[in-house]
Amino acid sequence: MHVAIEKIRERIAGNLESLKKYTATPGNGCTRLPFTKEAREAVEYLRKEMEAAGLEVREDAAGNIIGVMRGEDSSAPCVMMGSHFDSVVNGGDFDGIAGVVCALEAARQLKERGVKPKRDFVVVGFCDEEGMRFGTGYFGSGAMLGNRNVEYCRKFKDTAGVSIYDAMKEYGLDPEKIEEAKWPEGSIGSFLELHIEQGPVLDAEKIEIGLVDCIVGIQRYMVTVHGRADHAGTTPMDMRLDAVDAATKVISKIADWAREKADGTVATTGYINTIPGGMNIVAEKVEFTVDIRSSNNDHINDITAKIRKALERETKAMGGSYEMDNKLTITPVKLSEEMLQIMEDDCKEKGYSYKRLASGAGHDSLEIGQVIPTVMLFVPSKDGRSHCPVEYTSYDEFAKASVIMTNLAQKLVEK
Amino acid sequence: MHVAIEKIRERIAGNLESLKKYTATPGNGCTRLPFTKEAREAVEYLRKEMEAAGLEVREDAAGNIIGVMRGEDSSAPCVMMGSHFDSVVNGGDFDGIAGVVCALEAARQLKERGVKPKRDFVVVGFCDEEGMRFGTGYFGSGAMLGNRNVEYCRKFKDTAGVSIYDAMKEYGLDPEKIEEAKWPEGSIGSFLELHIEQGPVLDAEKIEIGLVDCIVGIQRYMVTVHGRADHAGTTPMDMRLDAVDAATKVISKIADWAREKADGTVATTGYINTIPGGMNIVAEKVEFTVDIRSSNNDHINDITAKIRKALERETKAMGGSYEMDNKLTITPVKLSEEMLQIMEDDCKEKGYSYKRLASGAGHDSLEIGQVIPTVMLFVPSKDGRSHCPVEYTSYDEFAKASVIMTNLAQKLVEK
Repeated sequence: MHVAIEKIRERIAGNLESLKKYTATPGNGCTRLPFTKEAREAVEYLRKEMEAAGLEVREDAAGNIIGVMRGEDSSAPCVMMGSHFDSVVNGGDFDGIAGVVCALEAARQLKERGVKPKRDFVVVGFCDEEGMRFGTGYFGSGAMLGNRNVEYCRKFKDTAGVSIYDAMKEYGLDPEKIEEAKWPEGSIGSFLELHIEQGPVLDAEKIEIGLVDCIVGIQRYMVTVHGRADHAGTTPMDMRLDAVDAATKVISKIADWAREKADGTVATTGYINTIPGGMNIVAEKVEFTVDIRSSNNDHINDITAKIRKALERETKAMGGSYEMDNKLTITPVKLSEEMLQIMEDDCKEKGYSYKRLASGAGHDSLEIGQVIPTVMLFVPSKDGRSHCPVEYTSYDEFAKASVIMTNLAQKLVEK
Repeated sequence: MHVAIEKIRERIAGNLESLKKYTATPGNGCTRLPFTKEAREAVEYLRKEMEAAGLEVREDAAGNIIGVMRGEDSSAPCVMMGSHFDSVVNGGDFDGIAGVVCALEAARQLKERGVKPKRDFVVVGFCDEEGMRFGTGYFGSGAMLGNRNVEYCRKFKDTAGVSIYDAMKEYGLDPEKIEEAKWPEGSIGSFLELHIEQGPVLDAEKIEIGLVDCIVGIQRYMVTVHGRADHAGTTPMDMRLDAVDAATKVISKIADWAREKADGTVATTGYINTIPGGMNIVAEKVEFTVDIRSSNNDHINDITAKIRKALERETKAMGGSYEMDNKLTITPVKLSEEMLQIMEDDCKEKGYSYKRLASGAGHDSLEIGQVIPTVMLFVPSKDGRSHCPVEYTSYDEFAKASVIMTNLAQKLVEK
């Protein structure tokens, strides 16, 4: 028997309202950095709630909290759902943690429906997705895939000089055992992550559920255009090497090249610096950033090529030069069409409004989706706001999404 | 009898080599700020050289050093030549002071030619043209015109908190008498200033003498474009208010609008600042400067109007707004065609290469040229460099220019 939506909403609200308290900045949003007192409190709360839902609970060597509903055959590839329990500094109450709570809620509903799983259903809360404290990211999910080791833990330090290694020990974990967090190959059959959208699309279009079919690829560059410093009054236009003129002739076209793709591709110059930066001095140097994201990697490469060609042309016309340093390259991750189709059919049946869309930001699913069939569910972010105290999604929206998650989980564990 | 060019060059070289020593930064260019020990030493050197040339010498209430060759009728409007004796910090050995030395050299040549002046010939070294110490400028020339008073002297202070007023007293001047530096209206019939070009034109074109027919007008603006900060990954292109996109669509056209004028008009954006300036954040705000200069004030106004119209269009298309704050407006000063014609004819006769051009920077002549018939002579700046220790003009070029000055002076004082 399916559980009443009011009850689901109430349980999710109860969990999230309790977890809100585990912040280092009460009254000013959620600040729950990894391997801190607040992280420990949140994990211990999740442990109790998982146990209350009848799950077998353990914390792994990376600090992930894992709750297992045993199926007939625990050696069969499991069905896993979850997200991360850490936050940024002065972040919101939903980013990450809502995905853990909704996965836990799915476990509760499976039990109440009397489902007899053929394989394990696993709820996971990942440790340190944001990378805020150590300037890293995807720590727990990376460790689960075997991508983190002791050297990594020793290498990265927080602003106080504390390494991941020492922070883990202080927190009660043994960093020497970090590789034990790895799951055997083939042991995870599928992964689902619910996350707030962190963008304005669902809220603006009044859509309840986002079916995420792709996590976009990203390329980031730091571009430097070299000209020559000259007196802005005494140097004729045809004797200048004006780095601002050349650079802005390129920057002014980048957004248009993204718009032309008309498929959700985005491109942004968020930073421009002029050197020396005097009002009456022709700029010697302009530095600017480019961030290009798309579900279509060819579109990213095409825009990159257009920028390079324009830089070539404009710096040649000026008589200067340029450098274009790649800072980040991530290829797009396609998510599981099979799971998307099941959820899409279910949304139609339930009459929930939905939309397929790409995720413009990275998530634990970016790490996991490269090796395991993965899917993401988005719920609306009011005004597109996130990573700030006003971040908001209604409990009703979480409840509906958790029903879709439960139905998918049931289909998958009964197979 | 005209004086041999070798002798002229030698005397100019002697004066400039001596004056080089009066710097607060020996070995690192000329640093001769107003009302300092170095300024006093330079003035006392000039006084002796003026006296040796047979001039009546006095220091006026503003610190200007003035040498007069008496004419038949001292009540007739005089012929004045000179420039300033102060420098910027770590400046060159010629900016300003070369104009004083060449004016003094003209007086020596007039005497040696046996000229009997009908009116006074006046050599002047102005105090504090650069405005480096007190953040002002044109102090001595302004005082000569009656544009400086005690309140002004009290108002402006250097970085150590010393006012012009206190600096003058320390230097041996009485700031209470500053208005005595004013010359009676009509007492100065004409003014000539020789100055290094501080731009690359004469040096690049291998031209010995620049006949300056205009000091350009300037308009300066600080422009702010307002958009909205958004996540660069999760915000679709059509939901952004991207301040960088709108601002660069304007900035990228400004230099072209100046080039179109093809008459020496220049326009520069030397400073751009993006706020918040994150690589993955759509910019909420872009600030940038515009500096437009032209001998044709209509061209400055036209470019300003084009910028305003483009800002209007682009910020409207974006959905944002803009401000365009005027920081400086100077209208162009036309220089004396009569004096230019005399010097042009003289250059032709002597076979000196010359070119008419506008001054893109301000000078004492900008202040003086607004009320008195004024002209400027430029000599080449090697590679266009100035306001730095490598600033260079050959003594040969100064010598030739001083001959042109002397011939003009002779024509004017014999009238």
